[in-house]
Amino acid sequence: MTTKTITVVRDLLATNKQAAAAIRAELRSRGILGVNLLSSPGSGKTTLLEALAERFRDRFRMAVIEGDIETERDAERIRAKGVPAWQITTGGACHLEARMIGKVLGDVPAAIDLLFIENVGNLVCPASYDLGEDLRFVLLSSPEGDDKPAKYPQAFLSADVLVLTKADLLPYLPFDPDRAAAEALAIKPGLKVFIVSALRGDGIDALAAYVVEALERLRSGHA
Amino acid sequence: MTTKTITVVRDLLATNKQAAAAIRAELRSRGILGVNLLSSPGSGKTTLLEALAERFRDRFRMAVIEGDIETERDAERIRAKGVPAWQITTGGACHLEARMIGKVLGDVPAAIDLLFIENVGNLVCPASYDLGEDLRFVLLSSPEGDDKPAKYPQAFLSADVLVLTKADLLPYLPFDPDRAAAEALAIKPGLKVFIVSALRGDGIDALAAYVVEALERLRSGHA
Repeated sequence: MTTKTITVVRDLLATNKQAAAAIRAELRSRGILGVNLLSSPGSGKTTLLEALAERFRDRFRMAVIEGDIETERDAERIRAKGVPAWQITTGGACHLEARMIGKVLGDVPAAIDLLFIENVGNLVCPASYDLGEDLRFVLLSSPEGDDKPAKYPQAFLSADVLVLTKADLLPYLPFDPDRAAAEALAIKPGLKVFIVSALRGDGIDALAAYVVEALERLRSGHA
Repeated sequence: MTTKTITVVRDLLATNKQAAAAIRAELRSRGILGVNLLSSPGSGKTTLLEALAERFRDRFRMAVIEGDIETERDAERIRAKGVPAWQITTGGACHLEARMIGKVLGDVPAAIDLLFIENVGNLVCPASYDLGEDLRFVLLSSPEGDDKPAKYPQAFLSADVLVLTKADLLPYLPFDPDRAAAEALAIKPGLKVFIVSALRGDGIDALAAYVVEALERLRSGHA
């Protein structure tokens, strides 16, 4: 990489950081918890949000911003659960940036509790972009293999919560959740780990309770 | 994106294209077929290469260049099959570039038939970088979902071969291989599709035969 390229990337990240700080301040002032979901394509981000939508129904008001390179598919799945959703299609870009969230934020109703942002499916690039969230999930699905944290460290280092998904497939796979968790914890001590099957419902109550605690901390000023 | 950023990206891609053309010319002059493997993390690229290594043993001389952000794990798995392997760790970069391959190429023995390049696990960024290969595989594993081609079109558009992996998990998943193939073919007509289970061996013979045909075409000057 040339010096010129490095400078441009640094400028982009600095500009993104400023935009993210403004979003974080706005969300906090509105008492909204922002949650950014990172993972490979097909790790179950949308399915997890569908399961959380069912769990939060009639208790907390949830909204979702969906990031994808192309298609409105994920937003449609979320709307089918009665949850407002906005689709950002990046048209090729490999991650969401804070300015993209900023553009949508004016449309998000003031009276919500939880704003989930589903990033573009990519375990690498989204890790470098703060979107103004107060909680970051990284998802790792059992079919991906328990050797992934050390191979893609930045995503795990930048996350607050590791969600090991597709636990229903564990009987058919060599995936060891303890190994995956230990490897992620070696990268990021203090990472909160949940093992879930969004399809069967395993672990969703515990994860939902953790999100609610984070919302309460935010509203009490201890985010 | 600013004009300056767009120009820098365009320069990077143009520089990469030149380096890739030199690699392609060198591989062809040495009668070596270069194959670039693209997919999400955990789609089974290394496991597919292990299965092909067993299939080609004593018939074709194979070598592998492994791309990862961190760790030597994949190269170690390939070496355990008796196949020479070089690990490129990008230290954060989300894709391999032709100049990285160029640096390793001098170490690759002249007397090989097939050079496989396993890209960084990322269904987005590697699609834009020609590595000088003559054949590009994109892998999509059944747990990732059959809705992925339209969401990540560039990877499928840039590929010659679609390998639908982890067919052994099909009984436990809603994945429809026909839907995935049809969606990919709508993006890239003429894409060759193989359904495989590298663990069980399904479909590996057909894929290996296709690779050998491509090698013969290259050596007869019809690549």
